[in-house]
Amino acid sequence: MNVTIWNEFRHEKQNELVRSIYPDGIHSAIAQGLRDLDSGLDVRTATLDEAEHGLSEAVVESTDVLFWWGHAHHEAVSEPVVERVHNAVLAGMGLVVLHSGHFSRIFRRLMGTACSLRWREAGERERLWVVNPGHPIARGIGPFIELPNTEMYGEPFIVPTPEEEVFISWFEGGEVFRSGCCWRRGNGKVFYFRPGHETYPIYHNRQVLQVLANAAHWAAPHGERVSGIHKAQNVPAEQAREKIVRKGGSVHQPDGSLGGAMQ
Amino acid sequence: MNVTIWNEFRHEKQNELVRSIYPDGIHSAIAQGLRDLDSGLDVRTATLDEAEHGLSEAVVESTDVLFWWGHAHHEAVSEPVVERVHNAVLAGMGLVVLHSGHFSRIFRRLMGTACSLRWREAGERERLWVVNPGHPIARGIGPFIELPNTEMYGEPFIVPTPEEEVFISWFEGGEVFRSGCCWRRGNGKVFYFRPGHETYPIYHNRQVLQVLANAAHWAAPHGERVSGIHKAQNVPAEQAREKIVRKGGSVHQPDGSLGGAMQ
Amino acid sequence: MNVTIWNEFRHEKQNELVRSIYPDGIHSAIAQGLRDLDSGLDVRTATLDEAEHGLSEAVVESTDVLFWWGHAHHEAVSEPVVERVHNAVLAGMGLVVLHSGHFSRIFRRLMGTACSLRWREAGERERLWVVNPGHPIARGIGPFIELPNTEMYGEPFIVPTPEEEVFISWFEGGEVFRSGCCWRRGNGKVFYFRPGHETYPIYHNRQVLQVLANAAHWAAPHGERVSGIHKAQNVPAEQAREKIVRKGGSVHQPDGSLGGAMQ
Amino acid sequence: MNVTIWNEFRHEKQNELVRSIYPDGIHSAIAQGLRDLDSGLDVRTATLDEAEHGLSEAVVESTDVLFWWGHAHHEAVSEPVVERVHNAVLAGMGLVVLHSGHFSRIFRRLMGTACSLRWREAGERERLWVVNPGHPIARGIGPFIELPNTEMYGEPFIVPTPEEEVFISWFEGGEVFRSGCCWRRGNGKVFYFRPGHETYPIYHNRQVLQVLANAAHWAAPHGERVSGIHKAQNVPAEQAREKIVRKGGSVHQPDGSLGGAMQ
Repeated sequence: MNVTIWNEFRHEKQNELVRSIYPDGIHSAIAQGLRDLDSGLDVRTATLDEAEHGLSEAVVESTDVLFWWGHAHHEAVSEPVVERVHNAVLAGMGLVVLHSGHFSRIFRRLMGTACSLRWREAGERERLWVVNPGHPIARGIGPFIELPNTEMYGEPFIVPTPEEEVFISWFEGGEVFRSGCCWRRGNGKVFYFRPGHETYPIYHNRQVLQVLANAAHWAAPHGERVSGIHKAQNVPAEQAREKIVRKGGSVHQPDGSLGGAMQ
Repeated sequence: MNVTIWNEFRHEKQNELVRSIYPDGIHSAIAQGLRDLDSGLDVRTATLDEAEHGLSEAVVESTDVLFWWGHAHHEAVSEPVVERVHNAVLAGMGLVVLHSGHFSRIFRRLMGTACSLRWREAGERERLWVVNPGHPIARGIGPFIELPNTEMYGEPFIVPTPEEEVFISWFEGGEVFRSGCCWRRGNGKVFYFRPGHETYPIYHNRQVLQVLANAAHWAAPHGERVSGIHKAQNVPAEQAREKIVRKGGSVHQPDGSLGGAMQ
Repeated sequence: MNVTIWNEFRHEKQNELVRSIYPDGIHSAIAQGLRDLDSGLDVRTATLDEAEHGLSEAVVESTDVLFWWGHAHHEAVSEPVVERVHNAVLAGMGLVVLHSGHFSRIFRRLMGTACSLRWREAGERERLWVVNPGHPIARGIGPFIELPNTEMYGEPFIVPTPEEEVFISWFEGGEVFRSGCCWRRGNGKVFYFRPGHETYPIYHNRQVLQVLANAAHWAAPHGERVSGIHKAQNVPAEQAREKIVRKGGSVHQPDGSLGGAMQ
Repeated sequence: MNVTIWNEFRHEKQNELVRSIYPDGIHSAIAQGLRDLDSGLDVRTATLDEAEHGLSEAVVESTDVLFWWGHAHHEAVSEPVVERVHNAVLAGMGLVVLHSGHFSRIFRRLMGTACSLRWREAGERERLWVVNPGHPIARGIGPFIELPNTEMYGEPFIVPTPEEEVFISWFEGGEVFRSGCCWRRGNGKVFYFRPGHETYPIYHNRQVLQVLANAAHWAAPHGERVSGIHKAQNVPAEQAREKIVRKGGSVHQPDGSLGGAMQ
């Protein structure tokens, strides 16, 4: 299975503290962690400042599951790349959105909502409870994950009702958050996973990496991508599965297109 | 309750057949039908070629439920108006999307998917079965609605799994379609209703109008609109409901903003 | 709207502490609180030790929304009454299940799952966060409800994925819980609300009572109850909406019943 | 993967027509079909008139996915076996319910609803449309399955809103039906698949068998079964993850049980 880890990769270049935790970038830490944990994943990386943000057609086409970490430069991701990734998800590619990626263009586009939340950066304790113990993403995790220092994200999280919830977080400062949420969009699966701040070593935590490996397997497509998902396919009357006779008027031409005057 | 019926309103000006069925436009037919059926609805209309497409801030702000009919000119709807309507839905306004509005910018934005389907215009018979008899949108409808002549829409309909389904259609030519679907997005409700072609008198059918009146009541907001839904609200450590002490580093400034070098 | 508050009503008779908080029983406290808050509700009560547990056919038939509080005597509720309430919900009656009612026969029957959870009785602080601010059940509540002393319920809560979530709880001892969950079953609506312990004055809390009043309005049926929901209705070939000719063999008699030898 | 096909297996013994189509029983036809199609499935069978209906603890314990076909003798399935299967599903076993199994005790128990529908036995044509082309259960099926002769099942199908829909059926006589529906219950998955009548050779159809093989893979558990799902686990105050001090009164004993007088 081909996994691509996408990272904004600017904090690590600009900030000493972030660099001390992720010297080769968050993407490299996740990639290495996944390789170490799960030999079934073929992991590569891509970052914002590469050509086409490292997400050329060839890369996206050959990616089974894309991970997305962004924070301060969501708007720097170009429209063609957002559209390419969006189309790939609808056609079957899996997408795992990490932490501050909740405000990324691709996540907001797939959700159709604001994706906003409350937040606080105080290094407080977080405990992610497994609310769905039989779910493949929770496999091997036990009843909860405890993280000693995290940024808080609090409800309300303005997303469509999750189709499945895997984790809900408790925070030391008194908030809760739906931290592991699943949706299906077209033929693709989307998983949002909350932990992952740039100034705490979250992606060195073995349980967090196990969740990410599990999520890759969960989000992977079944079979080939479905093409042509954006097109409204016309089915002429003579090709109907049941015999019908065309009745009534139309503003369409016989080929299904709208006549010139209508456009 | 304030209802606004939005219509592209070009077919009716350009095409004799459409004009013969809807001489004052589809919007006027629906508006009059709703007024006749339900005195609790205060109904007005808006169309594409008005200033701001008839959807000024004042209109959108004072609309409880917006109906949307578009077909051949979805891309002519300006980005500011799409964004205004999108924000209004997330804040609590109801939206009822009609027929070929499945490809409208606002519906695609709210769904996050392609919203595509198969179609055929042959004037065939359609029967919409009520699959959820206790649902308020089906109130007073009986087991089904039969329409003698309709355009066919066939599955797969590429939308997120509906949170509630009210109608599924049977077509003479052999297809099926999820014709009445409910979603919640932010604080707003969205209902998609399939019937409604420009060359058949669908919006003169009393059962169809009853569904639209029911849908207006279902989609209406409870209480005031929620403002600020797009903002990620910072909760400083000293305002946490539980006493916490700030730990660890940050790339943020004390006010929650990112430092200049980070942006 | 007719609301019936059902209570096991044994703790209050047997235990001094419970009686000191709810001298006339939990049901009476809720009933009075709802009457004080919302003049649109016609509230009556019923308890386990009355004939038919106070839930005769006439009572259930005329109840729009039933509230259910039980704890130590779930198995004392008779099968005919469980079945009567179950049928009423499927036909359209609303049901609001409170606190330890998660293990009641009627809730388990409607959910089809174990409805188990983790728990601790230590009088700890609970904060219920509104995760769905536009939901009618959260109307007038603000961002959260704080309860100084509650019994803890912790995840995993073994219920079907809620169709809508309104509240998620934070507990002082470190757990979280999906505390306000909505489901639809047949034509009826079900709301589970977590707070409500017998040894804390939860049902004297004004926000809690507001949630219960809101829940009554949310769960109330639209229109008349649907009868005959358990029957598989036979539609003879000659009554099909489309003309068909009967083909093939059958183990059924012409009237749809199975022949004697088959039963 | 261990698959067990359960069949009522009485029609085949009592009725010449059924026997001519399924000489060794519906279970044997499905079992052989699955073995022929998918060498990854280890398939065995069980029937009503065996001891414990062929579903001893050892059989259920070692079954990954159970298929269920019943029709005229649902009430002959004993309570202990229904409970055993129910518990196994909640703990992680997959369940695929076939055709008239919609009225089986195990399906009604898992759904919590009437599971009723409309029906007609006229040997009419059915076309199952794939509404979710990326779903693993639809893999390799194409846009639809056509069956020349089937019993009709029509909406409304009184089940909880499906979490995922894979197929919707069109019937020659004018009805529609949600023919392939997915739910999660506890840690187990449930798939209902409509086709499968006793007097038509449905289970000799290769596409139908492909769906059943796909469903077995979809419904199979991830990892080990979760035990103790029915128990409400007490977490004493001193074992809370966050330090808390016990406050307030209780009707419980220190070990979490209710005192004698309370029971």
